Amino acid sequence: RRGEMAKSTQLIDNEVFRAFATYTAIVLLKMMLMSLITAYFRITRKAFVNPEDTATFGKGESAKKYLKTDPDVERARRGHLNDLENIVPFVGIGLLYALSGPELSTALLHFRIFTGARILHTFAYLIPLPQPSRGLSWAVGYSVTFSMAYKVLKTAWLL
Amino acid sequence: RRGEMAKSTQLIDNEVFRAFATYTAIVLLKMMLMSLITAYFRITRKAFVNPEDTATFGKGESAKKYLKTDPDVERARRGHLNDLENIVPFVGIGLLYALSGPELSTALLHFRIFTGARILHTFAYLIPLPQPSRGLSWAVGYSVTFSMAYKVLKTAWLL
Amino acid sequence: RRGEMAKSTQLIDNEVFRAFATYTAIVLLKMMLMSLITAYFRITRKAFVNPEDTATFGKGESAKKYLKTDPDVERARRGHLNDLENIVPFVGIGLLYALSGPELSTALLHFRIFTGARILHTFAYLIPLPQPSRGLSWAVGYSVTFSMAYKVLKTAWLL
Repeated sequence: RRGEMAKSTQLIDNEVFRAFATYTAIVLLKMMLMSLITAYFRITRKAFVNPEDTATFGKGESAKKYLKTDPDVERARRGHLNDLENIVPFVGIGLLYALSGPELSTALLHFRIFTGARILHTFAYLIPLPQPSRGLSWAVGYSVTFSMAYKVLKTAWLL
Repeated sequence: RRGEMAKSTQLIDNEVFRAFATYTAIVLLKMMLMSLITAYFRITRKAFVNPEDTATFGKGESAKKYLKTDPDVERARRGHLNDLENIVPFVGIGLLYALSGPELSTALLHFRIFTGARILHTFAYLIPLPQPSRGLSWAVGYSVTFSMAYKVLKTAWLL
Repeated sequence: RRGEMAKSTQLIDNEVFRAFATYTAIVLLKMMLMSLITAYFRITRKAFVNPEDTATFGKGESAKKYLKTDPDVERARRGHLNDLENIVPFVGIGLLYALSGPELSTALLHFRIFTGARILHTFAYLIPLPQPSRGLSWAVGYSVTFSMAYKVLKTAWLL
């Protein structure tokens, strides 16, 4: 029985926490993918910002022309920053939400909608899809985080 | 008795953790508010960065003039980035701090000062207030996070 | 025995969690250091972005010339943003990893390599060192986080 109890106190054995861990890993990996997409555009568009990154293209003036901005690079960077601005609150508030004792089905609903919305947001930003695709997918993810924050504040409130 | 023990091991029943959850939700919601403020300035100043966002203003050259930077938009964006740079360490270090067994009164002091300082920082940035208002409110929040990091390292140190 | 069990359920008494807390505090403090480095370059290069920050240099046109970008300031800012993009996933995924029951030696290997790689990355960015120093140190940290995410998904998977 001791082992049983010890086990039940491990967060990773809690189903809501397992769901949180799964979706958090997925959205953070998706966010990390933005680095690779930015790097891809920097290399294929030959658009760099650090002089040391253009050294392979030669020295002096011949390399200097690769220190430029490119619309695709900037777009990927904006998508990455938008991920940071939205996925950071999801992870922080989502962790507290997962520990606040929600029903598994309710928690899964929150995590699935947020994850789907952020994947859509990335496609809407990178393709790009016409508005309001990007705006709506952003708003859906934002609302999910807001809903979890409400549950956290209702459960934990101690000011 | 088993239920009692099980309950006492739930993080959300711990008062320090409840305080951490409350203040973390507040500062993360405050950070999320920066997105709405940026969107408000983009729409009222008609200053966008993505061509697809100006499609409602017409096509071609007539819409292109709304692809511009605006001082208020840029100011809100800098405030948002500063939040990311400072609230991310607060949430990460604060979680570890809350789990390191501090006195409730000491923990509340840290969380309250940080939250107050970041709210002041936002007002100082957006109004803007003359310096050193923004600098001081930044430094106060920074020091609180540093103090929590010291407690975490003293308690948990295992390199 | 009750006290013993209660103790064993405290995260901060778990060795893997203590190691996670130690390395997380270190990398977040390192990230916070980037704010001070940026401030140092802004002051020594007299390169500011907010008009209210140049008020001490006089009024009107005489202060306006300090509203400029500086290569060293921009480099420190890029290093800071790169930290956010990489240390946020490390902290989020690393927390779940620490709770997924890895061997202490394996966990320490992950945390140590990540922390070393990010410190190298900062030196490679700020000095700057010739490529591929910065690229490689970035890739090593990225791979460590990826490896932890794999363990989290394998252990927690609940979609």
